Amino acid sequence: MTVYNFKQDLADIQQRINNFMLAQFDEIDCSPSPLADAMKYGLLLGGKRIRPFLVYATGQMLGAKITQLDYAAAALECIHAYSLIHDDLPAMDNDNLRRGQPTCHIAFDHATAILAGDALQALAFEILTKSTALSVEQKLALVQILSRTSGVQGMCLGQSLDLLAEHKQVSLAELEIIHRNKTGALLSCAVTMGFICSPEFGNQKLAQQLENYSQAIGLAFQVQDDILDIVGEQTEIGKPVGSDLNLGKSTYPKLLGLDGAKQKAQELYRTAVQNLAEMPFDTTALLSLAEFVVSRKS
Amino acid sequence: MTVYNFKQDLADIQQRINNFMLAQFDEIDCSPSPLADAMKYGLLLGGKRIRPFLVYATGQMLGAKITQLDYAAAALECIHAYSLIHDDLPAMDNDNLRRGQPTCHIAFDHATAILAGDALQALAFEILTKSTALSVEQKLALVQILSRTSGVQGMCLGQSLDLLAEHKQVSLAELEIIHRNKTGALLSCAVTMGFICSPEFGNQKLAQQLENYSQAIGLAFQVQDDILDIVGEQTEIGKPVGSDLNLGKSTYPKLLGLDGAKQKAQELYRTAVQNLAEMPFDTTALLSLAEFVVSRKS
Repeated sequence: MTVYNFKQDLADIQQRINNFMLAQFDEIDCSPSPLADAMKYGLLLGGKRIRPFLVYATGQMLGAKITQLDYAAAALECIHAYSLIHDDLPAMDNDNLRRGQPTCHIAFDHATAILAGDALQALAFEILTKSTALSVEQKLALVQILSRTSGVQGMCLGQSLDLLAEHKQVSLAELEIIHRNKTGALLSCAVTMGFICSPEFGNQKLAQQLENYSQAIGLAFQVQDDILDIVGEQTEIGKPVGSDLNLGKSTYPKLLGLDGAKQKAQELYRTAVQNLAEMPFDTTALLSLAEFVVSRKS
Repeated sequence: MTVYNFKQDLADIQQRINNFMLAQFDEIDCSPSPLADAMKYGLLLGGKRIRPFLVYATGQMLGAKITQLDYAAAALECIHAYSLIHDDLPAMDNDNLRRGQPTCHIAFDHATAILAGDALQALAFEILTKSTALSVEQKLALVQILSRTSGVQGMCLGQSLDLLAEHKQVSLAELEIIHRNKTGALLSCAVTMGFICSPEFGNQKLAQQLENYSQAIGLAFQVQDDILDIVGEQTEIGKPVGSDLNLGKSTYPKLLGLDGAKQKAQELYRTAVQNLAEMPFDTTALLSLAEFVVSRKS
């Protein structure tokens, strides 16, 4: 029996998804253009690839072949990348650095960054239609979940609420709504997409267990982000420490104290683990991911 | 025999699609939010509804029921509306007025306008998955054509090329590439979407004729836009006359002269009419639309 190596698995997936996404551009008939360059730049600035990891880990756990998961993982990462490009714009979070690199609108220009985000969103949905290893029903279900969770009832709503909450006191309940949408929605979507690509698609009990797991780690991810904004090292997190506090943003440590926030992350971790324990599958990879989410340093 | 009344038909479609799009928001579980408000504002600022008209006119000509066309028409208009919101941003065309009304980022704020555009794009693809009157194959084909024509190989590419062309001389061939992508891609997409929703979906010869028609009117639409930027009335076109010239943009009248541009529009009109004449269907509505495109005053 081989011991599961999370770091290696994540590194392998990072490489696989980067190659796969770049290969999508080879298939596209666009002459070299700043727009395509800015899209690739934004995609490769995306970082940890936790969302693709969740697609692959969930799908493979449930019996999907890895080639049945590439398109869903890539589409989701295109959505994530577009959201980062737009969030970094001066009118939004106004960040010049992401993971230690100039953000897209700094490396290119504002207009190109807006368009690159727009075109990455379109590319996400185009990619979902392309897989030959999925049924038409599966592909349409992927389009549905990705569009719903990334829009006015999901990620965009979360970002909008987050901006409205700047410089004012929000309650813990309000903060949770913000983050369940802003970050949680896409992380949950990743797990659902892996499920849709698998032979278990349609198993409602399992869908609910996966939902519980992904909601817990989605929120835990944000709590840990807030913690790292206080205790992290700038060189590791790739943006100035305390930048959220400087924007007057409400965070979990602000509302719960640093220890309270750490406790919250641990509770969410336990919820995730409990839900995994109920699934009749080898949950090793999803378990490691949950551990990673609450223990990561960047 | 009733005489076809284009103006009335267009007005009916405007009302139908506006009602249909607003009804989509009733189905969405979003508490009143600036984001949803900005999306609705942008949608209703959209104007003439030529793209929905093309979806309905093409689809009904080919035997589709009107209820089979609503979702495609609405999705396309969401994409058009998002592109207008983003194009009007200061980093792009920097327009404060559209159709005589404050643009979205003026009526709301920049961040909300960016997010409203993003969420409208997501909504477009979500809407396409919803129709119960279309097959799964039809819905997926709609997702595919809309994502492809609105992204890095279509509308976004056109807008990017258009911005790059500011303050420099471009050739007629380059100008055509810009406009075939920036405006033409979505107009062609409208016709293709009507075709996909109809019983003729799969008829390759017809697909080609429709493509020829829509490419001709797509380009004619832009030529006429350029002409109106010179000869139009500000009160009719809803933005300052000459605003393109002020941005140093290349236009058809600039490259061909005003008479040359008018001639170009007429040539494209004739191409459109010839292609319609070859189709064994009642092409009255599409013919009227072609006339409208080259004779409109706003």
